[in-house]
Amino acid sequence: MSAQPGFLRHVIDCNRADPADYVAFTIAGAAVGRVRRELARRLAGFADLFAVTPDAVALQPGFDDFAARSHALDQALDRLIAGGLVPKRRKELYPVAARFADPPLARLDRGAVASFGVRAYGVHVNGFVRRPDGLHLWIGLRARDKLVAPGKLDNLVAGGQPIGLGLTENLIKECAEEADLPEAEARRAHGAGAISYAMAVPEGLRADTLFVYDLELAPGFVPRNTDGELERFDLMPVAEVAERVRATDDFKFNVNLVIIDFLIRHGVIAPDHPEYLDLVSGLHRDHPAFWR
Amino acid sequence: MSAQPGFLRHVIDCNRADPADYVAFTIAGAAVGRVRRELARRLAGFADLFAVTPDAVALQPGFDDFAARSHALDQALDRLIAGGLVPKRRKELYPVAARFADPPLARLDRGAVASFGVRAYGVHVNGFVRRPDGLHLWIGLRARDKLVAPGKLDNLVAGGQPIGLGLTENLIKECAEEADLPEAEARRAHGAGAISYAMAVPEGLRADTLFVYDLELAPGFVPRNTDGELERFDLMPVAEVAERVRATDDFKFNVNLVIIDFLIRHGVIAPDHPEYLDLVSGLHRDHPAFWR
Repeated sequence: MSAQPGFLRHVIDCNRADPADYVAFTIAGAAVGRVRRELARRLAGFADLFAVTPDAVALQPGFDDFAARSHALDQALDRLIAGGLVPKRRKELYPVAARFADPPLARLDRGAVASFGVRAYGVHVNGFVRRPDGLHLWIGLRARDKLVAPGKLDNLVAGGQPIGLGLTENLIKECAEEADLPEAEARRAHGAGAISYAMAVPEGLRADTLFVYDLELAPGFVPRNTDGELERFDLMPVAEVAERVRATDDFKFNVNLVIIDFLIRHGVIAPDHPEYLDLVSGLHRDHPAFWR
Repeated sequence: MSAQPGFLRHVIDCNRADPADYVAFTIAGAAVGRVRRELARRLAGFADLFAVTPDAVALQPGFDDFAARSHALDQALDRLIAGGLVPKRRKELYPVAARFADPPLARLDRGAVASFGVRAYGVHVNGFVRRPDGLHLWIGLRARDKLVAPGKLDNLVAGGQPIGLGLTENLIKECAEEADLPEAEARRAHGAGAISYAMAVPEGLRADTLFVYDLELAPGFVPRNTDGELERFDLMPVAEVAERVRATDDFKFNVNLVIIDFLIRHGVIAPDHPEYLDLVSGLHRDHPAFWR
């Protein structure tokens, strides 16, 4: 963790990446990701799939529709797994596009998304309760066997956004799996913004945009995880949540950002906090660019 | 107005400025503003006050404390008014600093803030009521004799942030003046974020950061303007507010941005809106930089 307590350190940690380490990954002329230079050199060896120049890795233009491009990327993934550059498929397919609102140019297994530096999307739900003694948040404890951030604290519900599923459908699915929330309850969640970041990871670049939802729950409701991804839930006073974000690394790296956004929107981090404006801009870095 | 209806056009309109038209304005080595090139050439004639190079206008380093710098800027303002380059003083003093959280390096009359492209700060309050038939917003109609945006629609409360007043104190003062809200009611407003923009204006650059507050009001409360800046208030259903922002220019240019932020935070503009991510990042451009 960063040496000094604070909120902004989490935003900085989620945005550690040196643009000089990467080249653009393009499909049909559109920049859809970023590839680390070492990987670009390896991909130059797959000349049937990629045209590699000093500035970019381009999917060969002969792959000219969604199916052909997706198949080409899947072949590349086979070779990257065989070469030990990607551990394994995650068996979840993500869209590949220059912008979220665009029709996808291809689909890609989640396990290769960071290798190609393709922006991934997710939904995170702040589940909160208004009690006479103040705002409380339902906080999940991630299972110890999770691939990413085992044993860390998490939002009530959080999940990646696969291809072919609407945001609301995905929200409903994740609310059922992660917190045993009936559809009618999940539909009471409302969108409240989005946060973005891009960070260097061993495979390449993890560039994520998380749609954040707020869901006010009845004081009597107790969530229950049904997919084994969370060990348990605790209802924490918002001041305790804020202090653990500020002073510890107990929360999963990106969940810190979702909660900081919640704390700002609900006035828990007040406008005269010295980090306020840097937090507000730092949580909402430009989309779809990875860096200014 | 922009030809096509939409929300994003307001963000684009508030960020129209060509960096090439401006040079940095510096005090003690810190970039605190932007000066249009034509004005920089005029300021080169005030060699006792400014050192002008092709890239920057620097306040002469001999003015080495807050009082001396403020006096020097005030002398410059006298000459700009005499030369017809600034219409008049606004008699409100604004802080000059590289960042909001920094101690101000000088103070400057509001009438000259855009000429020096110094970032100005303000507080805007979304006054809303939860009724059985949905969310409603109290909307002000600006007086016809206002210098800026006469006859346009406005937030419940909005005001610039002068030097020497805390954000909360200013909020309380503005709530009393603009909506006759007692202090106890004003203190119920909570910070909910900030929006930033920088736009070319005839004097130079209008670079603003607005701290946005949400204030839920009782259904029976009726605001009343006491300073003559607003003609009246109307309680509008949120769908009507959203539609007027989307399809018209009825609202003051920057109030559109404050309301779009409110609509996003409250889920009225939903995450699957095609402009969503561009709105989220566009409302929160980097602070304190004026441009990427």
